[in-house]
Amino acid sequence: MIWNTNLRWRLPIVCLLLEVALIALFGVFVRYEMDADPHWLEEKVIKNLSTDLENEFYYRYPSFQDVHVMIFVGFGFLMTFLQRYGYSSVGFNFLLAAFGIQWALLMQGWLQSFDGRYILVNLENLINADFCVGSVCVAFGAVLGKVSPVQLLIMTLFQVTLFSINEYILLNLLEVKDSGGSMTIHAFGAYFGLTVAWILYRPNLHHSKERQSSTYYSDLFAMIGTLFLWMYWPSFNSAISNHGDAQHRAVINTYCSLAACVLTSVALSSALHRKGKLDMVHIQNATLAGGVGLGTVAELMVLPFGSLIIGFICGIVSTLGFVYLTPFLESRLRIQDTCGVHNLHGIPGIIGGIAGAVTASIANIDLYGEEGLAYAFGIERSKLNWSPNTQGRFQAAGLFVSLAMALVGGIIVGVILRLPFWGQAPDENCFEDAVYWEIPREPKSTALHSEDSSIKPPEP
Amino acid sequence: MIWNTNLRWRLPIVCLLLEVALIALFGVFVRYEMDADPHWLEEKVIKNLSTDLENEFYYRYPSFQDVHVMIFVGFGFLMTFLQRYGYSSVGFNFLLAAFGIQWALLMQGWLQSFDGRYILVNLENLINADFCVGSVCVAFGAVLGKVSPVQLLIMTLFQVTLFSINEYILLNLLEVKDSGGSMTIHAFGAYFGLTVAWILYRPNLHHSKERQSSTYYSDLFAMIGTLFLWMYWPSFNSAISNHGDAQHRAVINTYCSLAACVLTSVALSSALHRKGKLDMVHIQNATLAGGVGLGTVAELMVLPFGSLIIGFICGIVSTLGFVYLTPFLESRLRIQDTCGVHNLHGIPGIIGGIAGAVTASIANIDLYGEEGLAYAFGIERSKLNWSPNTQGRFQAAGLFVSLAMALVGGIIVGVILRLPFWGQAPDENCFEDAVYWEIPREPKSTALHSEDSSIKPPEP
Amino acid sequence: MIWNTNLRWRLPIVCLLLEVALIALFGVFVRYEMDADPHWLEEKVIKNLSTDLENEFYYRYPSFQDVHVMIFVGFGFLMTFLQRYGYSSVGFNFLLAAFGIQWALLMQGWLQSFDGRYILVNLENLINADFCVGSVCVAFGAVLGKVSPVQLLIMTLFQVTLFSINEYILLNLLEVKDSGGSMTIHAFGAYFGLTVAWILYRPNLHHSKERQSSTYYSDLFAMIGTLFLWMYWPSFNSAISNHGDAQHRAVINTYCSLAACVLTSVALSSALHRKGKLDMVHIQNATLAGGVGLGTVAELMVLPFGSLIIGFICGIVSTLGFVYLTPFLESRLRIQDTCGVHNLHGIPGIIGGIAGAVTASIANIDLYGEEGLAYAFGIERSKLNWSPNTQGRFQAAGLFVSLAMALVGGIIVGVILRLPFWGQAPDENCFEDAVYWEIPREPKSTALHSEDSSIKPPEP
Repeated sequence: MIWNTNLRWRLPIVCLLLEVALIALFGVFVRYEMDADPHWLEEKVIKNLSTDLENEFYYRYPSFQDVHVMIFVGFGFLMTFLQRYGYSSVGFNFLLAAFGIQWALLMQGWLQSFDGRYILVNLENLINADFCVGSVCVAFGAVLGKVSPVQLLIMTLFQVTLFSINEYILLNLLEVKDSGGSMTIHAFGAYFGLTVAWILYRPNLHHSKERQSSTYYSDLFAMIGTLFLWMYWPSFNSAISNHGDAQHRAVINTYCSLAACVLTSVALSSALHRKGKLDMVHIQNATLAGGVGLGTVAELMVLPFGSLIIGFICGIVSTLGFVYLTPFLESRLRIQDTCGVHNLHGIPGIIGGIAGAVTASIANIDLYGEEGLAYAFGIERSKLNWSPNTQGRFQAAGLFVSLAMALVGGIIVGVILRLPFWGQAPDENCFEDAVYWEIPREPKSTALHSEDSSIKPPEP
Repeated sequence: MIWNTNLRWRLPIVCLLLEVALIALFGVFVRYEMDADPHWLEEKVIKNLSTDLENEFYYRYPSFQDVHVMIFVGFGFLMTFLQRYGYSSVGFNFLLAAFGIQWALLMQGWLQSFDGRYILVNLENLINADFCVGSVCVAFGAVLGKVSPVQLLIMTLFQVTLFSINEYILLNLLEVKDSGGSMTIHAFGAYFGLTVAWILYRPNLHHSKERQSSTYYSDLFAMIGTLFLWMYWPSFNSAISNHGDAQHRAVINTYCSLAACVLTSVALSSALHRKGKLDMVHIQNATLAGGVGLGTVAELMVLPFGSLIIGFICGIVSTLGFVYLTPFLESRLRIQDTCGVHNLHGIPGIIGGIAGAVTASIANIDLYGEEGLAYAFGIERSKLNWSPNTQGRFQAAGLFVSLAMALVGGIIVGVILRLPFWGQAPDENCFEDAVYWEIPREPKSTALHSEDSSIKPPEP
Repeated sequence: MIWNTNLRWRLPIVCLLLEVALIALFGVFVRYEMDADPHWLEEKVIKNLSTDLENEFYYRYPSFQDVHVMIFVGFGFLMTFLQRYGYSSVGFNFLLAAFGIQWALLMQGWLQSFDGRYILVNLENLINADFCVGSVCVAFGAVLGKVSPVQLLIMTLFQVTLFSINEYILLNLLEVKDSGGSMTIHAFGAYFGLTVAWILYRPNLHHSKERQSSTYYSDLFAMIGTLFLWMYWPSFNSAISNHGDAQHRAVINTYCSLAACVLTSVALSSALHRKGKLDMVHIQNATLAGGVGLGTVAELMVLPFGSLIIGFICGIVSTLGFVYLTPFLESRLRIQDTCGVHNLHGIPGIIGGIAGAVTASIANIDLYGEEGLAYAFGIERSKLNWSPNTQGRFQAAGLFVSLAMALVGGIIVGVILRLPFWGQAPDENCFEDAVYWEIPREPKSTALHSEDSSIKPPEP
């Protein structure tokens, strides 16, 4: 079958239609929340706020910018490890995230910030939109190199919608804790993406096998992504935590977990190589699993050594996954997981969800204090029958709901994306920028730096 | 004509003289503003401040660091797209910005923070100095590859001076709103740089045509610059906004505008290529136009959908500019705009200025509240005859003043830079790092990674 | 002698043992400080705090994240300049820093945050752990390319221990000011690393001479490190300063010093090249010396022009060091300083220490105000006999203690690292990633971008 990868009219029309629709919906529905509205001056008087610093902006702005960097530079560059797919990795990630955050502002807004007439947005909405898109970036990792930008926009459209519904069920109906999104972002995103990849199975992908590896420099570019994700993960897991000690604790826990995870990733990477050499794939990915695994419990009383243990386990499991599970998934289950998101986001996301259920079910007044417990789990008068045990069960239920939503949603979206007119490339042209990008001609490398021959020496 | 590009004495002498002069002037004029002075402890008592957080530092520090990254990594790496000019792009940008911020602290200080005896600096001065240098970085983009570092230092000296005067006229005399600098930074910087490029026209630049393109990796380096500019632009547009809701609103608006701009840039880039392929030049540059276009209105009540519309338009206009206008400027008007700053900063800056005039002229108490309106536009008792209409006209006047200053200043500076002894390279050696940099010899690429041949295997 | 560089069991066992020990020690000793504990809600009532913002978190979080970026991306990428050692530079830096921060939390915790039963950690501990590791990263620069990851972990174990003791002597016993760590971090780290490099002298290192240079792209990667270090240095020097004016002043001073340093580095780099060309090594390193030199005095009343003078001097001295001193150290003193840390951290650290002694000894009430002076130097009732003069002498003593600790510690650690079973590479295989890393095969470069030949054109 000959597929047409010329996107000349399909991509522009999809982009422009989506953006026009977004503008219309924003015009009808989106306004500023009070903290971002000029009437805040009056609000300050009413609420008797003594200082401008009480504006939500100052609690969350540094975290917001860090999360923003993770989505665009972190995920974007992490995927540049492929030798001929750097433009697409960083460029398509840019495109889908830019579309996704707008659509997420609407979807999450209708479900969570709707006052009956308007969606009222503030900085927390922007963070949540970035979070939602993070889940799409995870799924992108599973299908990287095998889909067209049109397919990605469609996948984003559906995934953001499903994410928002799933998030609503977990946070508003089941009232689970998931501040760093082990379940809502990582497990959901990974299994959604893997299901899509399964539906889009490409039997002849070995024809583009040589392009599925990295080069020396492409691996260094990927390390930019890895490090910005790793460094800013404490901001990710604390960005929407409760003010004060909860935000503070989420940072400490994530910092500890990630540090431990680096050591076990390195240990396993070396131990699993016959000459004891390290593999960049593990260093780029498994080192981050500790952040994923801590996403649910970040602000809970897991204690620093509990965080270390979670990071310890995630680093080991994730590296083992890259070595043994990814080949198994591809050969036996026909799931082609380009970036190994199953190892970085899937299993660690599940570990995170389980850790959350366990940690919640052993919460007690000794650890949290009476007020602290009530505040941490949002126990109000209407929830008098709350107990750590029920919280633990609801946490576990949240994990199952996320996985179920991911599988069902992934199948539906995968089937839609299988339609043959989205501009996807044939198997032998996967992982190739030149399909969708104008590529510069390689300069004659002999000329590049031989200073004396190419420059006419103008000095006297 | 044979030009001497050996800078051995010219560059060191210029650098050292400038720095000695700066030290002398700082010694005479610059002191800490009260918020950065140990006497602040007493000030706290006098002003009855309850907390150290009321120090201006905590309102602006995160934004400051983001802006700082934009100037040095953002602009620096954005210009590394040229295949043989990466060192100069990032290195000369570093040099001119480091000089420029010091000179800007003095120039802006004399005009805006002078207490009769001393310039009192605090974090806001550092942000404004970075802003001022941002305008020089824009102009650098127009002349990139065609000027020596000595010329750049001279250009910076004059441009910072003119920028500060123009800024003073706009902010202090016309009292316009321009928190993100659509007019003062972007339009001024772009048309100043384009005028200089016009005066410095090089008729034989086609001799270095091959070096004006990119390579695969140079384009990825440039994407680092693009993304850090894009991600931190909300900080740029809100960095010196009023505390509280204004800063908050500027972030939301800029975030929206930039997101919309990505979709229309991609749409147009694909639509304008005969095979529908994307062009990295557009993704690197046009996606940022939405931030420029929102610079004047960022903190005004443009509403989220208004921001989307501005981003929508800027992405389209900017991409069209790269495809049609830049070649036209070069062939007909003899303006060689290396980075296409006209498309990224020039036209979007004008759009921003116009959007500011329109938004200001429809401001009303319904939108802002009475107090909010007074605070947003700084209406005090002395300005009882203020009306949205006059504000709108003053905004428009500010745009014209900026353009006029840019053109006149650009001509004067261009003529000075035409003098033949600044170490500029001949046309055939433009866009070439080896003229000013010690370049490493390229390693024999065969040896690079063939592990087994080059390493003596010490394992038993 | 044939050395075995196969780390298959050594590296995993060391990593896992260290991590298990850390988890056990964290379990016994580490708990959250009150600001990160759920009981903070009760603390707020007791301390009569009106707002969550009084949580230490909000004072220090932006600075913390910036410092974190400096350690992992800053130092990591700064060292990628070597043509075949990019993976190791960024990867081993990642490993040693991840281990180091955990060990530093314990060591610094026992000495400074121990309440008799537990180490109570908050964000300041995380920053201090990053600082401590910064000193290890400095030492890593001296031995870069010549040690195995096992050696690095052992070096980190000892250096963190010694650092913490030295820091305790300086800050708690001598009560010196050193907020940006000119003495404790930079001078200590540099001379420790140089001593280790001296003990590990490799007589046949010229066999890997060709790999000690850079390539065009490796130098651009290194500039990422340089710029993030340079931009975030104001955060580094102010991260643990007193709240309010001190933090504010430390930022202004560091910003000024770094800007001046760029101009003199460029000036000297050009002046010392026979054709006046710039050397990337100087731009990557000497431009940062101004931040090191300001580390001790950052929050003191050195005034903006004093900061400029320190930056001015550091840029000159550092560049001279690269040109004249590094070759001298190698040929005469048999100290092979791979990254030239002596020029970037050693001498500027000493300059910083001296500047601190001088600045402290001329402190007076005119400059600081009575309250300001007491607050800046922590003068309490028990220190009634405090005088600027004694403070100055103690500052000088602190510098000597740091240097002595570095030399003695470096000799001991160096001797341990000389043992032949740590997996170090022979001299001819130094500076080579392939010893410890799985390296991708280089793609046939002809195929890389010739769009038409490698892609089967599917368009009709």
